[in-house]
Amino acid sequence: MHRVPVEISARHLHLSQNDLETLFGPGYKLSKIKDLSQPGEFAARETVQLIGPKASYEAVRVVGPVRRQTQVEITATDGRFLGIKAPVKLSGKLKGSAGAILQGPKGRVGLKEGVIVPKRHLHLSTDQAKSLRLKNNQKVALKLAGERAVVFSEVVVRAGEHYRLSCHLDTDEANAAGLKSCGYGELII
Amino acid sequence: MHRVPVEISARHLHLSQNDLETLFGPGYKLSKIKDLSQPGEFAARETVQLIGPKASYEAVRVVGPVRRQTQVEITATDGRFLGIKAPVKLSGKLKGSAGAILQGPKGRVGLKEGVIVPKRHLHLSTDQAKSLRLKNNQKVALKLAGERAVVFSEVVVRAGEHYRLSCHLDTDEANAAGLKSCGYGELII
Repeated sequence: MHRVPVEISARHLHLSQNDLETLFGPGYKLSKIKDLSQPGEFAARETVQLIGPKASYEAVRVVGPVRRQTQVEITATDGRFLGIKAPVKLSGKLKGSAGAILQGPKGRVGLKEGVIVPKRHLHLSTDQAKSLRLKNNQKVALKLAGERAVVFSEVVVRAGEHYRLSCHLDTDEANAAGLKSCGYGELII
Repeated sequence: MHRVPVEISARHLHLSQNDLETLFGPGYKLSKIKDLSQPGEFAARETVQLIGPKASYEAVRVVGPVRRQTQVEITATDGRFLGIKAPVKLSGKLKGSAGAILQGPKGRVGLKEGVIVPKRHLHLSTDQAKSLRLKNNQKVALKLAGERAVVFSEVVVRAGEHYRLSCHLDTDEANAAGLKSCGYGELII
């Protein structure tokens, strides 16, 4: 049995340096509130208004550092509220993703693409992947116990030199599994 | 293999006659918009404002007919938004459930209990239950295919003379399974 930590991703966004400067001003740099579980990633002090055709969220958290392309991660529940038809996609796979408007204190960005519902995935180091005989992009399943016990299939393996072992679910998935905060699940390979 | 229809319950509420009259006026009767899948149940024209400590929903649909006790069904996502800690419970099992305020055009009801996150369940007729050798309150599992394929355990069997075969999930569960509207799943007994 392979016990793995499970973390819940709330809605958040990653910004390109270009979009960061449009929203917050020329030369702007993100300021860190706290480190996240994956090395290098951090919750920034900055938030952005996320505007859809039907509604908006006032303050969506920016996660740093800046990336090559702006990426907004929402749940399907959020998408229905906002009026944004965001597809389920792996982080970084933004082709065919949805658009939205971002409003910051200094300006506005009209995203043609970048809004996704993050596909559930398992981070682990390349060494851990080797010892479990897992390949990158392979799919595994995750079993969670409790009053809303569930087995999630379609968990994509994301192995990387510096990744720390952790399965990432979004809040819809965590709620469906009765998971109120971070916890543990059983990996089914 | 047992293929069963799967339906998605959005947030809604059932009212007692007493609370209905407090909210809408003395002698008030619900008016039907459309029948729902379980015989006798209907979506009413009436909506109610649902108020929690943190936020409120303007127009939550009333489902008729009136019941012995008022019951509000929300998702865990809704509960976090509203600031209401609603437990996962079967319909009708309201002991230990959460409170809320309901506001109608003619008055307001302060619920001490009645707010739940509905526990996933399978409706079927007593004859169908017999032929599948299922007992009331027994738990089964439901398998859903697709890009967010999942197996939900803890699906409670609700057999009744007039029930129609259908598995009920809430919107968090449907979203976690990638189910956009009603569909089909496979029963695992």
